Amino acid sequence: MTSNGSAAALDSTGREALHHVGTATITTQLLDRGLRNTFLQGPRPLHPQRTRMVGEAFTLRCIPAREDLDVLSVFRDYDHPQRTAIETAPPGSVLVVDARGQTRAASLGHILATRFRQRGGAGIVTDGAVRDLAGFTRLDLPTYAAGASPTTNLAQHHVVDMQLPIGCAEVPVYPGDVIVGDEDGVVCIPRHLAAEVARDAMEQERLEEFVLSRIEEGRPLRGTYPPDQQTLADYHAH
Amino acid sequence: MTSNGSAAALDSTGREALHHVGTATITTQLLDRGLRNTFLQGPRPLHPQRTRMVGEAFTLRCIPAREDLDVLSVFRDYDHPQRTAIETAPPGSVLVVDARGQTRAASLGHILATRFRQRGGAGIVTDGAVRDLAGFTRLDLPTYAAGASPTTNLAQHHVVDMQLPIGCAEVPVYPGDVIVGDEDGVVCIPRHLAAEVARDAMEQERLEEFVLSRIEEGRPLRGTYPPDQQTLADYHAH
Amino acid sequence: MTSNGSAAALDSTGREALHHVGTATITTQLLDRGLRNTFLQGPRPLHPQRTRMVGEAFTLRCIPAREDLDVLSVFRDYDHPQRTAIETAPPGSVLVVDARGQTRAASLGHILATRFRQRGGAGIVTDGAVRDLAGFTRLDLPTYAAGASPTTNLAQHHVVDMQLPIGCAEVPVYPGDVIVGDEDGVVCIPRHLAAEVARDAMEQERLEEFVLSRIEEGRPLRGTYPPDQQTLADYHAH
Amino acid sequence: MTSNGSAAALDSTGREALHHVGTATITTQLLDRGLRNTFLQGPRPLHPQRTRMVGEAFTLRCIPAREDLDVLSVFRDYDHPQRTAIETAPPGSVLVVDARGQTRAASLGHILATRFRQRGGAGIVTDGAVRDLAGFTRLDLPTYAAGASPTTNLAQHHVVDMQLPIGCAEVPVYPGDVIVGDEDGVVCIPRHLAAEVARDAMEQERLEEFVLSRIEEGRPLRGTYPPDQQTLADYHAH
Amino acid sequence: MTSNGSAAALDSTGREALHHVGTATITTQLLDRGLRNTFLQGPRPLHPQRTRMVGEAFTLRCIPAREDLDVLSVFRDYDHPQRTAIETAPPGSVLVVDARGQTRAASLGHILATRFRQRGGAGIVTDGAVRDLAGFTRLDLPTYAAGASPTTNLAQHHVVDMQLPIGCAEVPVYPGDVIVGDEDGVVCIPRHLAAEVARDAMEQERLEEFVLSRIEEGRPLRGTYPPDQQTLADYHAH
Amino acid sequence: MTSNGSAAALDSTGREALHHVGTATITTQLLDRGLRNTFLQGPRPLHPQRTRMVGEAFTLRCIPAREDLDVLSVFRDYDHPQRTAIETAPPGSVLVVDARGQTRAASLGHILATRFRQRGGAGIVTDGAVRDLAGFTRLDLPTYAAGASPTTNLAQHHVVDMQLPIGCAEVPVYPGDVIVGDEDGVVCIPRHLAAEVARDAMEQERLEEFVLSRIEEGRPLRGTYPPDQQTLADYHAH
Repeated sequence: MTSNGSAAALDSTGREALHHVGTATITTQLLDRGLRNTFLQGPRPLHPQRTRMVGEAFTLRCIPAREDLDVLSVFRDYDHPQRTAIETAPPGSVLVVDARGQTRAASLGHILATRFRQRGGAGIVTDGAVRDLAGFTRLDLPTYAAGASPTTNLAQHHVVDMQLPIGCAEVPVYPGDVIVGDEDGVVCIPRHLAAEVARDAMEQERLEEFVLSRIEEGRPLRGTYPPDQQTLADYHAH
Repeated sequence: MTSNGSAAALDSTGREALHHVGTATITTQLLDRGLRNTFLQGPRPLHPQRTRMVGEAFTLRCIPAREDLDVLSVFRDYDHPQRTAIETAPPGSVLVVDARGQTRAASLGHILATRFRQRGGAGIVTDGAVRDLAGFTRLDLPTYAAGASPTTNLAQHHVVDMQLPIGCAEVPVYPGDVIVGDEDGVVCIPRHLAAEVARDAMEQERLEEFVLSRIEEGRPLRGTYPPDQQTLADYHAH
Repeated sequence: MTSNGSAAALDSTGREALHHVGTATITTQLLDRGLRNTFLQGPRPLHPQRTRMVGEAFTLRCIPAREDLDVLSVFRDYDHPQRTAIETAPPGSVLVVDARGQTRAASLGHILATRFRQRGGAGIVTDGAVRDLAGFTRLDLPTYAAGASPTTNLAQHHVVDMQLPIGCAEVPVYPGDVIVGDEDGVVCIPRHLAAEVARDAMEQERLEEFVLSRIEEGRPLRGTYPPDQQTLADYHAH
Repeated sequence: MTSNGSAAALDSTGREALHHVGTATITTQLLDRGLRNTFLQGPRPLHPQRTRMVGEAFTLRCIPAREDLDVLSVFRDYDHPQRTAIETAPPGSVLVVDARGQTRAASLGHILATRFRQRGGAGIVTDGAVRDLAGFTRLDLPTYAAGASPTTNLAQHHVVDMQLPIGCAEVPVYPGDVIVGDEDGVVCIPRHLAAEVARDAMEQERLEEFVLSRIEEGRPLRGTYPPDQQTLADYHAH
Repeated sequence: MTSNGSAAALDSTGREALHHVGTATITTQLLDRGLRNTFLQGPRPLHPQRTRMVGEAFTLRCIPAREDLDVLSVFRDYDHPQRTAIETAPPGSVLVVDARGQTRAASLGHILATRFRQRGGAGIVTDGAVRDLAGFTRLDLPTYAAGASPTTNLAQHHVVDMQLPIGCAEVPVYPGDVIVGDEDGVVCIPRHLAAEVARDAMEQERLEEFVLSRIEEGRPLRGTYPPDQQTLADYHAH
Repeated sequence: MTSNGSAAALDSTGREALHHVGTATITTQLLDRGLRNTFLQGPRPLHPQRTRMVGEAFTLRCIPAREDLDVLSVFRDYDHPQRTAIETAPPGSVLVVDARGQTRAASLGHILATRFRQRGGAGIVTDGAVRDLAGFTRLDLPTYAAGASPTTNLAQHHVVDMQLPIGCAEVPVYPGDVIVGDEDGVVCIPRHLAAEVARDAMEQERLEEFVLSRIEEGRPLRGTYPPDQQTLADYHAH
């Protein structure tokens, strides 16, 4: 399932590249294309050890809860949009939740996250909170959240629909956009740019690793960072 | 056009009642029915003199802008959702904009508001900003906003769809809900409760006016506020 | 009733002085005595025309509401602390409410405020909100609040006790401290300093009015503001 | 010492139960009883490894400091409310500090915390900060704070009284309420509900562990979460 | 005195134009040139009646105060940077103060503002507060501030230098940039763009007034806003 | 290079002392000298294991970026102030960046930090963010930041000058002030006080270690903390 078109956003080379390059490199590539607002400020990786994530966005939208509609009994409905999302998001996708930046109640808990992992989900991002952090820590699924709250989602959130364009942490996320996470957090790459950004980011990062090694040898910034003609020649020769 | 059903949410008596009672009374009626989160904290009336507003919600949703999509040329599209909303919202409706509480750019400007007024719109509410405050001041249309910003909406907002349930100022607003505004701000009455809330609020307010007159005569709270049996008897007799 | 001691904090001269000097002068006098945190940032005067207020603090403390305790029926209790405060605060006092800076629900409404005015109250200050702004506008009682909300207080607040030391807008307020308000907002003068601050503020303000008249005549800051020996001599001679 | 009554809030079974169930389960039990605001948003556990805490609330209230009252010499007073609280809170209690959410200065330091631990304290919660994080890390006492600050408390706080009802992180806390902490943070159980919540939470969690094991086996949400008749039968049979 | 070069940023025609066009128009012109961050979010006009302001920026920078340096006696120094700025800013300039968005103490008071007015200053902008609002109300000088505080500036601010590039309300302001204010607030036009923006804004606004008159006649958005070929022809013919 | 004078702020004894005492002790010493605002609230240590930092402040100031000035090509300028700062700050200095508390883009990245480390820099402090957290984790340089962001600095920041007095996290920092960091965060010691604070803090901490050992033995606060005559005698005798 692809959301912005019929083909995958990335071939396996592109996907592989995005598993290696950092979000720092990706945001620079996007800035170079005129996009300044692609980093989701707020969500942090829950596990310092499981921070690399790549996948296509599957979006879920929450509005504020209403006490007469959002009662515990709605959880009995297996066709509730939240559960439908978990059961229909394609393998390899990243569930991106618009929780309006509200962390008083959780966006979702780790039983749903476990099912999502079982179905092949690539990761979860919310600008709200998750509940049962201990459970998430045991789960092998990259997850990024802006907070933790034990309170079940319907105390503050009403999951209303899925696969519509959303805002998450004040970044626009369209279904099928490519979501990448690492220690710095999460970036959203517009789908049509994913392949070229992956390619150019890979090249940029190779060069920066060379530059870094030179700096670590004690060279000054001048001539090295950014690389001048000589350094570039050395890079291409090494 | 009604959004949550085929009939109007209010008959003329109910609508008249809501033009007279205050939001302070309405929120108490809603609290008495278990609804604690019905006041839109943030939006303030732009004109102290034109603050009474009643109408059914016509919702508009914004997500964050993306620099390559949200360019000045999109305004040339007469079928842009923002313009479509202005041209299709039924007379008597209140345009409620989910701007995610962001006020750096405006949610809309006063030329669109003028057209909305021409078409019989009852008011505008946004949890974001409006631009051209001077223009709004000359316009006979109750408007509630969380701020002012001269910047055109696409610098921060992408109007994505309309007539879906939204959050506005962290209150759930479903299309067709009844929106009431006064000096204290804006309250959202779930559509199915509008008629009974209008009726009971009218009665509550009559009693409170009587109580207030007694307090203004110098009576103590005890026996008067809340009214005891004697005061109630006096009220019914007056 | 005096709270920090048996005598009044101010004689009539001092009280008169504080009705004339501005909070700008008072805070400078307090700063000169080592007190940097005496201005209540947040509460604004509700009426631009009725902003002068002087009185001794009568404190009221709110904690967050609990849904099972804070139900509408508690209002039937005439001995509820909120009502007791309104009925027992001495004439000339300023009701200062610690609402933890929370404005989602009101700290109090205008029927209680009307009773407080009837009993001779000098003003009301809250770091939360008031409800029924229209009612407050008709009431001849200086009131300072950080916001407006139609929602009744028990949706967010539980009035728990009175006449204890509190924080209001992150300033310490002890019962009996002298509270002064003007267009800039509200300042709290520790009770034992009230008389000397009143006297010195009066003198400072007289001098500043002279300085201002000189500046308005076109004189430069040098020699005039602050006044040098010559300007001081002119001041004492005029 | 019990604060809301003469008996303990929990027997040993209940206390044991609360040491095992998560705050995620407890908040659901409280929500089911109509209480939506029981999680203290803000305070985080200082040690990821020492997060389980159960005890009755012993409350301490701070108001903003005043420069002439809150000077270093007050620490010489062994009967200062802060020290009195540390020396009188009963073994097994949790010290809950209302610091108005202010983290610029600490609520307390680790020497006092060490004494509290020596006296059998079960834990510390503040919606402010603690100082000397390194010291806290070496101390075997669950502690939850909203921040860290090296600055001693009297630079911002005046400890004014103890064992009054307070707000902490915008949750009402009455002396004797049962405070539970885990990785998600801290929840406050009203004292009279503690026993039944402990019992029902234990049962809920057993069922959820069974459900989780099924989800981990690859079963879909439908039929499993929430459990349908068949899954419930399997649960009771396993 | 011009700060970014030797010539004035605007001739009299340009200056006149900017006195007539709104900031809403100016920000659109700047957005069209790729500048999205030119509106100073926060500062509001102090007088609804005196909101039009045009002038070149004269910048003043504040850092946080230090108790041993920022004592009342520094005001005795006539060469204090704050006083020097007031006495040296050229006639027609707008004093723009970087107060780091901090409003607990004032950025300046109305005696200094009166002197600035006497010297021909065109206006004052601060992302902090002003003190003595009543005094400012009597002064014929457009002033924009983010708040009011009676507290003198050195309780929170140390005026450190002037005529350096600053941030004000998170907008870059270079000395000599053209600052325009109206009811919506304040916008900063980079100096080298001021003339062309003034010219094009004037033209845009004339067209929008024509469009508005058409909308007020009852025409639909389609064809009118934005104007199509026919409407443009009508505009040029009218 | 020393910034506030010709001599070093600290001799080797003083510097050694500040490597051992905590910021909790230092802030108390500063409070005792009347300085209440010396802790940089916000920046947190990036490595829990590399938190001890002592050095003289080398300041760098950022203003908001402007899209036409802050483009990727400016990085080609080796004399850009950011690079000049990295190449000229003396060994042993701490780079302190005024990023106005803005964390949407990074203040600097780890290639520059690596060069700074190579040149003998003692640490980095920013009230903004850093990018490439993974890189910083591998770098042996104490770094304190208020957040992480992969976005390169010029998307939000324009580095404008260096070695001027700045505010960082609302604390004044003058070039040459002594900056100390530990697990609690960062404190700024005015240069002229550094030597005496170092000496007195060392003494205070020795005493507190003795007091702590007594508390750990089970002694009550009374007589021990603060130490009475007997405890002081024991301390001096041990």
